[in-house]
Amino acid sequence: MNTTEEVLDFVHHGHERYLPHLSIDCVIFGYHEHQLKILLIRHHQHDRWSLPGGYIGRHETLTEAANRILAEKTQLSNLFLEQFYVFGDSPTRMNRIETQQTHNTTYAKVGVTIGENHWLSERTLSIGYYALVDYLNVVVKPEYLVDEYCWWDASELPELEYDHNEIISKAFLTLRAQIYQQPVGYNLLPKKFTLPEIHALYESILDRQFDRRNFRKKLLALGMIRQLPEQRKIGPHRSPFLYEFDLEGYRRAVEDLSVRAF
Amino acid sequence: MNTTEEVLDFVHHGHERYLPHLSIDCVIFGYHEHQLKILLIRHHQHDRWSLPGGYIGRHETLTEAANRILAEKTQLSNLFLEQFYVFGDSPTRMNRIETQQTHNTTYAKVGVTIGENHWLSERTLSIGYYALVDYLNVVVKPEYLVDEYCWWDASELPELEYDHNEIISKAFLTLRAQIYQQPVGYNLLPKKFTLPEIHALYESILDRQFDRRNFRKKLLALGMIRQLPEQRKIGPHRSPFLYEFDLEGYRRAVEDLSVRAF
Repeated sequence: MNTTEEVLDFVHHGHERYLPHLSIDCVIFGYHEHQLKILLIRHHQHDRWSLPGGYIGRHETLTEAANRILAEKTQLSNLFLEQFYVFGDSPTRMNRIETQQTHNTTYAKVGVTIGENHWLSERTLSIGYYALVDYLNVVVKPEYLVDEYCWWDASELPELEYDHNEIISKAFLTLRAQIYQQPVGYNLLPKKFTLPEIHALYESILDRQFDRRNFRKKLLALGMIRQLPEQRKIGPHRSPFLYEFDLEGYRRAVEDLSVRAF
Repeated sequence: MNTTEEVLDFVHHGHERYLPHLSIDCVIFGYHEHQLKILLIRHHQHDRWSLPGGYIGRHETLTEAANRILAEKTQLSNLFLEQFYVFGDSPTRMNRIETQQTHNTTYAKVGVTIGENHWLSERTLSIGYYALVDYLNVVVKPEYLVDEYCWWDASELPELEYDHNEIISKAFLTLRAQIYQQPVGYNLLPKKFTLPEIHALYESILDRQFDRRNFRKKLLALGMIRQLPEQRKIGPHRSPFLYEFDLEGYRRAVEDLSVRAF
């Protein structure tokens, strides 16, 4: 929505095009300079930040809706995007007055008041999706009702709107659990990366320190990554080797890991 | 709903008490005589079976709704119950005419016709929950609109209503992934069990054969189960030892397993 007319049309007719009571919130993870980042937005005149999100069109599938919302925010398609949980327990989601006030701050920009019985004030459950994006490729498109966008360090998040801190915590737990099942690093790192880059990524997702030499040995032994005959020149005496993921090896390693339990 | 009046009240006023567009479907796993089972129902005059489910009350949390629905079906509370996915992609869920016809077969029993614009005909996304229950403790309560209940062998399911086969496949994938993270066996087996019982359970969930002696050695070495100084008399020369789960040991083993990756 980028004009006053589009926003007003959404306020007055959105419930005809979108399903009420349900939204999608996206936890968009990026990685830059050894830091795991999350994309947050600040709506018009709000103090608190929130996750980018949207509604499900009455004639689009849930997967189509999630991909459309993510593409609208990041200008990227064909991303790694995974549903992870539905949030429907927080009291803040069941409080019409609070929801109404939050919306009224935002929509004051176009001069409308959202009533207590307006479709936007109704109880809304939210389906959480997480995305892993190549930070450098994201071009955030400014939106009319959004005052500010920012990539926040995942380790230093502020207090967010609604239950969005809880949504991020759950996304983190999922990311941690899936780091052994999905090639998480593959989607967050550039195609060719250095050892310090992947080492710091795993340390920040798992919130744990790994000995760098053992970490390298283990990943190579498992066949998850392979060393390339290329180096990156980053200084007169610093030219670390580059590595890339071996997706087939990754899949085999994950399979072995599961079997090894028995 | 157990009387005609309750059903009619639900048809005419359900949308005032429940959120439209959203339901909960429960995949209830039980285990009996070395077979993994799933509880299915057959609605009035339907040929196909389906998963038990229900709607979310406007004033109850999502977790409360899931627990209430499961308690209504199984008469059990405090069960292992986990949300695993939202289903919103199947064309069969977006087809009003098909939904309307399905409902009309069911509600013919109380002499009402569901129109194309009735709240029950609207597009409904479904939140999948899976439950692990002690088969022997379940007392299924007959319901007015349900002709038949049955525990089906998980390996021999019929073609179900809507996208319910897909929901069960996803529940299975989740159960398999979580067998290493949750004490799945603990919730499906009786408190004290024999080695053949747990061996067959793991084999049927993971759809894979394990050498029985190595399986026992591994579980004991990991500290996941412990042998009891008790035997079960099942025949003149057959009195296998009993085992129980060590939940603390289970948690440690799962933790170790994750760390071992690096």
